[in-house]
Amino acid sequence: MTQVLLEITMSLDGYVAGPDATLEDPLGVGGMALHDWVFRIAAWRDAHGLEGGEEDADSELMRTTTARTGSVVMGRKMFSGGEGPWEDDPNANGWWGDEPPFHAPVFVVTHHPREPLVLSDTTFTFVDGVEAAVQQAQAAAGERVVHVSGGADVAQQCLRAGLVDELLLHIAPIFLGSGRRLFEDTGALPLADARITSSPFVTHVAGRL
Amino acid sequence: MTQVLLEITMSLDGYVAGPDATLEDPLGVGGMALHDWVFRIAAWRDAHGLEGGEEDADSELMRTTTARTGSVVMGRKMFSGGEGPWEDDPNANGWWGDEPPFHAPVFVVTHHPREPLVLSDTTFTFVDGVEAAVQQAQAAAGERVVHVSGGADVAQQCLRAGLVDELLLHIAPIFLGSGRRLFEDTGALPLADARITSSPFVTHVAGRL
Repeated sequence: MTQVLLEITMSLDGYVAGPDATLEDPLGVGGMALHDWVFRIAAWRDAHGLEGGEEDADSELMRTTTARTGSVVMGRKMFSGGEGPWEDDPNANGWWGDEPPFHAPVFVVTHHPREPLVLSDTTFTFVDGVEAAVQQAQAAAGERVVHVSGGADVAQQCLRAGLVDELLLHIAPIFLGSGRRLFEDTGALPLADARITSSPFVTHVAGRL
Repeated sequence: MTQVLLEITMSLDGYVAGPDATLEDPLGVGGMALHDWVFRIAAWRDAHGLEGGEEDADSELMRTTTARTGSVVMGRKMFSGGEGPWEDDPNANGWWGDEPPFHAPVFVVTHHPREPLVLSDTTFTFVDGVEAAVQQAQAAAGERVVHVSGGADVAQQCLRAGLVDELLLHIAPIFLGSGRRLFEDTGALPLADARITSSPFVTHVAGRL
């Protein structure tokens, strides 16, 4: 069975989005700082068509993960700033621009059905329900893994449904105080073969569930 | 002003004790595994009068922290397995034995007043209220820092009252699923000068609040 990897960045107090998150601002107040560690690395800048950035261990970890990724599952908020239904929505193409950084098929979990959207080398397919989205992503991943990218809702649904085989958790050295917690009613997950690494900017905890 | 350091170990899902914690089992179901990283190091074994253990970076960090500690603040559960009132309690001397590992004055936050207890080189003083306990610990710490050691109640009260100057958070690579969360209604703490290190067994995040 094609393996499913959940990769997500969390604050020290366990939030993956700050307070007052909306479809227009899905990371909530202060939530963008979760990703400060990634904006500085070369692998992230490459994927976004940008020059420069640090070629350090954080960047190497992202390159390894990207190379393993055959398809992506994400929630509707992560796809788009728009409210839907899509046909009326000025943000119907999401906010990832004409050159999305995924470079793999993306399956968006949504209750608003629509035709697939092709932008450069990325096809977004819209699927009602997280289990169906993971299943379609597995079929599309080939020899690689399905990358569950968030947000909180989709990550929690995948954890609760036992769909995640592998966890790659980044812990940013910030507190958000409130917002969306990642590990909420997700149980005492049995993390095996834990691998812990860190840089001055972030902690990485990987393992099998 | 004498600085106050909060040092505590948390699970990946943010718990400092597992479910069903009691005075007899204050770490709750699975909670002892939070401290697996510490049982193996030489610094911890030294403090407990035991031989051996690893002399690695984790151990060095603990030695540095111990050397900086002038006094200790802890909650009643952390002090004792007993229910009190103390005079009737078979566990009135706590469960740290005749040679407690603190080697510094300890201030126990409790609503059950009693006379100070001297065990080997440690004097336990019982104080009603966390602010008063920290104040007395500051007076006793000399040039060193006050070490707030837990548990969750005392740690949270100190964070909410703005009594903590410095945080040393250890994150163990386990999930507890439920229990006592450390960062609950503690706000968006302004962590400054964050220093992140890790070993194969644990992550350390230090910084100023």
